[in-house]
Amino acid sequence: MSKRDFLSTADLTRAELDDLLDLAARVKGKRPGQVLTGKTLGLLFFQPSLRTRVSFEVAMVQLGGHCINLSSDDLYELEPNEQAVMDGAAEEHVKDAARTLSRYGDALGIRAASRTGPWQRDRQELLLRSYAKFASVPVINLETSFAHPCQALADVMTMRENLVSLRGRKLTLLWCNHPEPKSLGPTHSVLQLAALSGMQITLAHPLGFEVDDEVLQKSKQVAGEAGGSLQVVNDMQAAARGAEVLYARSWGSIKHWHDAEREAMVKRSLTSWRVDEQLMATTNNALLMHPLPVRRNVAATDAVLDGKQSVIYEQAANRAHVQKALLMQLLK
Amino acid sequence: MSKRDFLSTADLTRAELDDLLDLAARVKGKRPGQVLTGKTLGLLFFQPSLRTRVSFEVAMVQLGGHCINLSSDDLYELEPNEQAVMDGAAEEHVKDAARTLSRYGDALGIRAASRTGPWQRDRQELLLRSYAKFASVPVINLETSFAHPCQALADVMTMRENLVSLRGRKLTLLWCNHPEPKSLGPTHSVLQLAALSGMQITLAHPLGFEVDDEVLQKSKQVAGEAGGSLQVVNDMQAAARGAEVLYARSWGSIKHWHDAEREAMVKRSLTSWRVDEQLMATTNNALLMHPLPVRRNVAATDAVLDGKQSVIYEQAANRAHVQKALLMQLLK
Amino acid sequence: MSKRDFLSTADLTRAELDDLLDLAARVKGKRPGQVLTGKTLGLLFFQPSLRTRVSFEVAMVQLGGHCINLSSDDLYELEPNEQAVMDGAAEEHVKDAARTLSRYGDALGIRAASRTGPWQRDRQELLLRSYAKFASVPVINLETSFAHPCQALADVMTMRENLVSLRGRKLTLLWCNHPEPKSLGPTHSVLQLAALSGMQITLAHPLGFEVDDEVLQKSKQVAGEAGGSLQVVNDMQAAARGAEVLYARSWGSIKHWHDAEREAMVKRSLTSWRVDEQLMATTNNALLMHPLPVRRNVAATDAVLDGKQSVIYEQAANRAHVQKALLMQLLK
Repeated sequence: MSKRDFLSTADLTRAELDDLLDLAARVKGKRPGQVLTGKTLGLLFFQPSLRTRVSFEVAMVQLGGHCINLSSDDLYELEPNEQAVMDGAAEEHVKDAARTLSRYGDALGIRAASRTGPWQRDRQELLLRSYAKFASVPVINLETSFAHPCQALADVMTMRENLVSLRGRKLTLLWCNHPEPKSLGPTHSVLQLAALSGMQITLAHPLGFEVDDEVLQKSKQVAGEAGGSLQVVNDMQAAARGAEVLYARSWGSIKHWHDAEREAMVKRSLTSWRVDEQLMATTNNALLMHPLPVRRNVAATDAVLDGKQSVIYEQAANRAHVQKALLMQLLK
Repeated sequence: MSKRDFLSTADLTRAELDDLLDLAARVKGKRPGQVLTGKTLGLLFFQPSLRTRVSFEVAMVQLGGHCINLSSDDLYELEPNEQAVMDGAAEEHVKDAARTLSRYGDALGIRAASRTGPWQRDRQELLLRSYAKFASVPVINLETSFAHPCQALADVMTMRENLVSLRGRKLTLLWCNHPEPKSLGPTHSVLQLAALSGMQITLAHPLGFEVDDEVLQKSKQVAGEAGGSLQVVNDMQAAARGAEVLYARSWGSIKHWHDAEREAMVKRSLTSWRVDEQLMATTNNALLMHPLPVRRNVAATDAVLDGKQSVIYEQAANRAHVQKALLMQLLK
Repeated sequence: MSKRDFLSTADLTRAELDDLLDLAARVKGKRPGQVLTGKTLGLLFFQPSLRTRVSFEVAMVQLGGHCINLSSDDLYELEPNEQAVMDGAAEEHVKDAARTLSRYGDALGIRAASRTGPWQRDRQELLLRSYAKFASVPVINLETSFAHPCQALADVMTMRENLVSLRGRKLTLLWCNHPEPKSLGPTHSVLQLAALSGMQITLAHPLGFEVDDEVLQKSKQVAGEAGGSLQVVNDMQAAARGAEVLYARSWGSIKHWHDAEREAMVKRSLTSWRVDEQLMATTNNALLMHPLPVRRNVAATDAVLDGKQSVIYEQAANRAHVQKALLMQLLK
């Protein structure tokens, strides 16, 4: 964790990850008491949210603290660029919002996952990083187009609960179809933590749906150092074979980052990228994971999502637990 | 109450109703203590709300619990149909939202009163029933087009406070004018509870504004069994004469359920369906009730709404008390 | 304070102001304990808000109380005019909303700063005053087009912290440019409290941006009685010279109150009305104040806003402290 922010899983060392997940395991199912009494977490959502919003609020409340929720409906437009001459639509600079909120509360969470320009710009997480720069309190990434570290923590916690040890275990991260272009955040973040955990990772997607190359290369290196591996394939069948964890999710095309129509057209021929019972049967009795929300019968069939290998609700439930651990580390 | 949900007043036995209202009377004006400490109620509003939202939040907070409020602005569209191939606008299935929220909180309240199709469809309360089916925690109906049980509980509590015993007492449920087509929820639910209480009910409305026939027939039967009666008239003057309670509210036309313009046209000739002092003078010194919000000087005049027979704010205040009782029963 | 409302700084006596700010100073940085346990404050926002929303919620929570937040997205339209025949868009009368909310909570805050008609109408604060009239609990003004008393309290608290005594001290209230027409609320309210504090006030603005004349004349009188003075100038340079406090903010033109395009056109020639280091150098080492949000490099440059004379974040932080004091006075 850089400073006391939690912006990316790429910042975590293996020891920090272990500490965080060990703490999450200890607080799970227990009420660790009112350890955050008097603490306030401000949550700023610039996109809709169900799990993130509710799991953070529940986490704070159960620890004795309080959440203040702001959505883009409550707010005016905010300017993230330094030295901007603010004669446009933005009513306030992120600098001032971040510094003001730092005077009122004890931490800030920011969801800022919309597409604002070309990928080379969006991968820089300008709005989030601007909050982190100017806030004097810890800032938590609640998802950008580039990263969703809280989701990945919950995912790895869920894998550990089911597989005990992750080193050398076979994880397939599988692209699946979706009518809308989606963030690459969950994919990048779980890839990074699986690499850090030394898993044997197969990343599978159709041509044109490559993940960010810097994330990919760095994850390969990290996986190798941790006793694991990372390969990329464009064949769903080959990717699923022998997997111990099948992690399905759609993500947007970096290539067509600002041409949603083009991406939609390409995806019309990719409807077979959907997890079904046949595919699951070729795995090594794999856990089925998906970070939700999921497009049922498009990304994966009801049969597999509701099947006995599915741990999708465990992933969701673990959001609250890992976030309690995170908040305790950042705020206590 | 089916399972531990609270979806409809039609599910209540007389003994259950008495228990609930007795508890509500006991907690009214008292602070029953922090009996719901650590409990979380999630409220999902797909339409605006003032009383329901605030009365539930106050009820939870005063019992030591916590509310998490989500409105349609915070959320994406949700799919209620099972086995749907989710390639449209809905980003998540109610199944997944309900199961996820069940992992985070202790109960869910759902307001889903919009018109989504023909009456035969809307009367099935698809979205609410879907939450109730998939949630593993109690689900509370915060109003559909078909039912508004929490409002009716507060209404009956208010009648009891003023009339002591309801059996055989004369209640007139009176349609009144309104520029917009409204839900039938409050009308159906108060009709059901008045029937269960053995009141002598007169339901009065213009032709074309009949309530749901199944609700009507069942309520007639229940009223009869409880020592009361239920008659329908289309004459406002006749309906008001001798009433001990005049309960005014507009509701939409089932006949024109998907033709708001047609309904509006019909209502142009119905402006006399408005409660005023003249009408009140023909009653037996009746209580004036209305569940709010009320269109002043359209549905009822200022003089009667602000008059000494009016108990409209008592009804609103009792929302908090009956809901405390309900939450204590469902969550303790 | 009229009744127990807090609607305007014009209602405060000097003794009341001192009491409030003395209490604010005592609670600042301390946790005065859970003195508002069981109390609920309802906040109604008809415009976006960051500081007001968060500072009130933090204030209530840290005093052991609870905030219920409603925004125009949660609500339908409300009718403020008495005796209205409500056959238009407004679904509920302010009378009924105010009386209902008074049954649920212990105080109400209202932000209603939009332009709804000519200045002679908007200066009457119809929506706010309507809530104050009908609510039986204290009502707090969270900003109208005419007044923003909570901001002014925080501003005067900040001045006192830095200058100790305000009597006879030189304050320049300086209009500055902004792409949008803004409320006159903060300007009027700080003018009134500075006058009450006996400051030597220079109000500086371009021709056409006069403040409300009644506020101006009354403030002149109050300032004189308190040992201070109030002059109006149309020359920014002259106004800044020798100032001990330079309080910058844009406000809208009463003259062009309902012609935003005309105001925007006029302001195109007023871009020099911007605080920069050169201007600051002519002051008597003045504090730089601005109530936020600020248009950086339009109203004031980054250099002065981020400079060592700037107390803009102190002003924001003091919102929470003065509001704690206010809530303790109104609710304890």
